[in-house]
Amino acid sequence: MTRTILLDKRPIGLPKSSDFKIIEEATPDIGDGQILLKTMYVSVDPYLRGRMNDVESYTPPFELHKPIVSAVIAEVLASKNSHFKKGAFVSGMLAWKEEQVSNGDGLVKVDETKAPLSAYLGVLGMTGMTAYLGLTEIGKPKKGETLLISGAAGAVGSVVGQIGKILGLHVVGIAGTDEKLDLLVTELGFDAAINYKKTPDMVEAIKGACPHGVDIYFDNVGGPISDAVLFTINTFARTIQCGAISVYNETSLPKSIPVHTFLVRKRALMQGFIIFDYADKYPKALTQLTQWYQEGRLTYTETIREGFEAIPQAFIDLFKGANKGKMVVKI
Amino acid sequence: MTRTILLDKRPIGLPKSSDFKIIEEATPDIGDGQILLKTMYVSVDPYLRGRMNDVESYTPPFELHKPIVSAVIAEVLASKNSHFKKGAFVSGMLAWKEEQVSNGDGLVKVDETKAPLSAYLGVLGMTGMTAYLGLTEIGKPKKGETLLISGAAGAVGSVVGQIGKILGLHVVGIAGTDEKLDLLVTELGFDAAINYKKTPDMVEAIKGACPHGVDIYFDNVGGPISDAVLFTINTFARTIQCGAISVYNETSLPKSIPVHTFLVRKRALMQGFIIFDYADKYPKALTQLTQWYQEGRLTYTETIREGFEAIPQAFIDLFKGANKGKMVVKI
Repeated sequence: MTRTILLDKRPIGLPKSSDFKIIEEATPDIGDGQILLKTMYVSVDPYLRGRMNDVESYTPPFELHKPIVSAVIAEVLASKNSHFKKGAFVSGMLAWKEEQVSNGDGLVKVDETKAPLSAYLGVLGMTGMTAYLGLTEIGKPKKGETLLISGAAGAVGSVVGQIGKILGLHVVGIAGTDEKLDLLVTELGFDAAINYKKTPDMVEAIKGACPHGVDIYFDNVGGPISDAVLFTINTFARTIQCGAISVYNETSLPKSIPVHTFLVRKRALMQGFIIFDYADKYPKALTQLTQWYQEGRLTYTETIREGFEAIPQAFIDLFKGANKGKMVVKI
Repeated sequence: MTRTILLDKRPIGLPKSSDFKIIEEATPDIGDGQILLKTMYVSVDPYLRGRMNDVESYTPPFELHKPIVSAVIAEVLASKNSHFKKGAFVSGMLAWKEEQVSNGDGLVKVDETKAPLSAYLGVLGMTGMTAYLGLTEIGKPKKGETLLISGAAGAVGSVVGQIGKILGLHVVGIAGTDEKLDLLVTELGFDAAINYKKTPDMVEAIKGACPHGVDIYFDNVGGPISDAVLFTINTFARTIQCGAISVYNETSLPKSIPVHTFLVRKRALMQGFIIFDYADKYPKALTQLTQWYQEGRLTYTETIREGFEAIPQAFIDLFKGANKGKMVVKI
């Protein structure tokens, strides 16, 4: 027998445990060309929240009473496919199942001798590529510029900041606990960090931490923090709009200050970024990230939860800021 | 004696006549290398409102009790500069004065045999170049795409739409009177137009006029109209943020819906545009605009007020939507 997690109800606002359901099924058999996969690590990510709504977005919504799908690292338990040997590890978009059958499409082999398996869900996976390609393709950083990151202690933000330092930028992170601030500055080499929950005046705090203004804003949160940043951007600033976790669970759109005058006055750019549009650049990005990782210039933080049944709560806890770095569930 | 218009008080909200003051001075003499200019046409533009506030923007604020400066067409009344002959016409950023002295820096000769003088303030001036370079450099239009324009009957908007048609786009304009809508569709060749003052549901109206969604949004207004547009943009849409006349006179920033989720979901781009950043592209743009004008493919609309003392009111009336096309004052 093997377990699967289904989307049982479409969440309203913050997702709840009762929106998910665990079922048990017989372990599947494999046919010619197929492999049987055992899930080792599951990635839980804020963007999955959008797919739980019944609205068309950049990926189709999850179907009700069907399994959730996210990035997963799995071991090949049995194989009738010559490309995948028993005992190999693969990465891919797979269902929240303990065991599942695949024909191998879209799966990538991962090398556990180069990095721990969970790193392929984070710094050497979509997370790292989002950080690298968002920063370089839209941010177009120039040495000496100032990079500000919201959600800086999150999976993507913590990698963006490290890459910013490698590229010679002044890097400032915004996060919500002093423990996260400490991580950013002490362990990840950020130049400064701001605790938005303890800061009465975000505009002044950003100006203080970014004395030459903000050239690149890597935005993972949206909302009031991003409103404040508008007052601090330099001429020709670039905002990478990578996520808006602050509003993913809102059932109606909150009001915000209008960006238009700021963009005109500063001739600034804001651009939405989704990693799936940059698939042609994955190999180059992965090569660069792996090199930096192996040189010890890129470290990563992860929050690991344990057990298959822990997946829904790990996902829910993302919206409470419970994770430092990448949130991963080890099965 | 010759008259000058000074900024007497910094306007609060909508500018008033009493914010300006007309003074009389002796007609100036010219020295070696100088020319005496007689103002023929004065351009009044929404962006001047920003310079009347005491805040740093992309151009420094106007000084109190000093003349306002805008684009002007003038005749050379007398010359001690070999580059400018008596009787020639020039265009440049000049003071709101009936007569003034210049050393010729920054002045461009204009050819009254190719187009009426006032056209060099509009379709063949900064207005036309803003339309052409904003649309092509940021909008990057592809034949068959849909272009939506706010402030479409204004100076810039009315040229943007015509260029859109020349480039093979589906062009829709938003304006505030039925007379303006008629101008857009009947005289300027727009495919459709929307009267925002008579439309209860802008989102539905835009969807109706843009059945394939909006690929390029040329925004001259900001505010609630631009909020509505967010719901209609296509994947990879480009917004040219050219102006925000709806908020230029606001003393505090109104609230708006946040753009972040829309930009992420649609991987859309918003970019502030100011023509002065594209000075290296003026000659190419002017050549293209002049060619289209001479081929009869580009017409222009202007609202001409008369008399030097009419300048402040013409400027004030811009914010009441009193102009169709370029607002110009003939001296």
